[in-house]
Amino acid sequence: MNRKAVVLLSGGADSATAMACAKRDGYEPYALTIDYGQRHHIELEMASRQAKRQGVVKHLALAVNLRAIGDSALTDDISVPAGRSIEEISGGIPVTYVPARNTIFLSLALGWAESLGTGDIYIGVNSLDYSGYPDCRPEYITAFENMARLATKIGVQNKVAIAIHTPLISLTKAEIFKLGNQLGVDFAITHSFYDPLPSGNACGKCDSCLLRLKGFKEAGLHDPLAYGNSQ
Amino acid sequence: MNRKAVVLLSGGADSATAMACAKRDGYEPYALTIDYGQRHHIELEMASRQAKRQGVVKHLALAVNLRAIGDSALTDDISVPAGRSIEEISGGIPVTYVPARNTIFLSLALGWAESLGTGDIYIGVNSLDYSGYPDCRPEYITAFENMARLATKIGVQNKVAIAIHTPLISLTKAEIFKLGNQLGVDFAITHSFYDPLPSGNACGKCDSCLLRLKGFKEAGLHDPLAYGNSQ
Repeated sequence: MNRKAVVLLSGGADSATAMACAKRDGYEPYALTIDYGQRHHIELEMASRQAKRQGVVKHLALAVNLRAIGDSALTDDISVPAGRSIEEISGGIPVTYVPARNTIFLSLALGWAESLGTGDIYIGVNSLDYSGYPDCRPEYITAFENMARLATKIGVQNKVAIAIHTPLISLTKAEIFKLGNQLGVDFAITHSFYDPLPSGNACGKCDSCLLRLKGFKEAGLHDPLAYGNSQ
Repeated sequence: MNRKAVVLLSGGADSATAMACAKRDGYEPYALTIDYGQRHHIELEMASRQAKRQGVVKHLALAVNLRAIGDSALTDDISVPAGRSIEEISGGIPVTYVPARNTIFLSLALGWAESLGTGDIYIGVNSLDYSGYPDCRPEYITAFENMARLATKIGVQNKVAIAIHTPLISLTKAEIFKLGNQLGVDFAITHSFYDPLPSGNACGKCDSCLLRLKGFKEAGLHDPLAYGNSQ
């Protein structure tokens, strides 16, 4: 039985928890981080440290310049919204949506997985808590699996099953933090903010920070990150 | 009506013909070439010259190092087969298969298309003539379209249709060369060989050369490329 799995690791709390789930499920994790021209390299540093902490077999950082294809607040010079209410956050597809991002990431993971001789891929997508991203929904993941089975040598030859594992897809943020906590994830080496301050602290104001803070609070857990101007 | 289309342009004869089809169909072509760590950069040069010749609106060359995920004769140090018969060529999936290549390419094309506000993408895949690649078949293309409609903002909001155009998918090589010829494609600025000689000439021995030579012969057309040790 093949027990390798490619895990997409962004440096955020969700993907760190997805990585811990892959290990819980008995897989040897191969971490894949995409350097897609994010505005902040802290994500990549966190991914690298998290991969090391969780003892991955290999950590591959692959550069793809999604800035060249543009049109997102995460890669372009569009402002990241700050200080919005949860109701505002939940309205539609956010400007931080990157066109076809998860499809590009899963495709690269699929290519690496096939080279490794496995069809198991983990991704920490989550369709709850107002994420609003079309490529985080269960119906999208199922469609990607169907496509992947037809796309690849491993799929066509049917030697290994192709499965996109999404252990967090139907969890609330609070449930994700509780799960990660149970599995021993060190959330101090994750980021969850779009606009870190010059100090490196999380801003505490963008959608990502607000959802993280709400999640930790509801989980009754301490968030080890430093926010705002605190030390 | 939006008339932009992203066209995947490899530098080969098939994608040059697909580009001409996009123009025939009334689209403004945006050419996307993926520099994926091919062993030979002549492909990229040909793509650049072909894009210029066909007057594209923009030509974007995007680097993705598929060598890092390996396992193909086109990116790895695996030998490209030479001098095989057409019967041998037709046996199964070739070593030149790159894991998930078309899925990765189409995903990047999808991201760019979405940024441009269009869902039209052209790719010169061909399921006949012994290609043996799983990601060149009509059922794969249909599955990709289904996935893409669920993956993207344009798909979910249903403002533009998402269509992967495959004008060559059911043509023989001879029919492709005839079609390209009718549409005015300059095949002198295409390549179709995996192992060019030090002179820059096509080898005339690899699967790709053998299929191209057979196609031109059956089409009754002159192949303008120089092969082997000819001048």
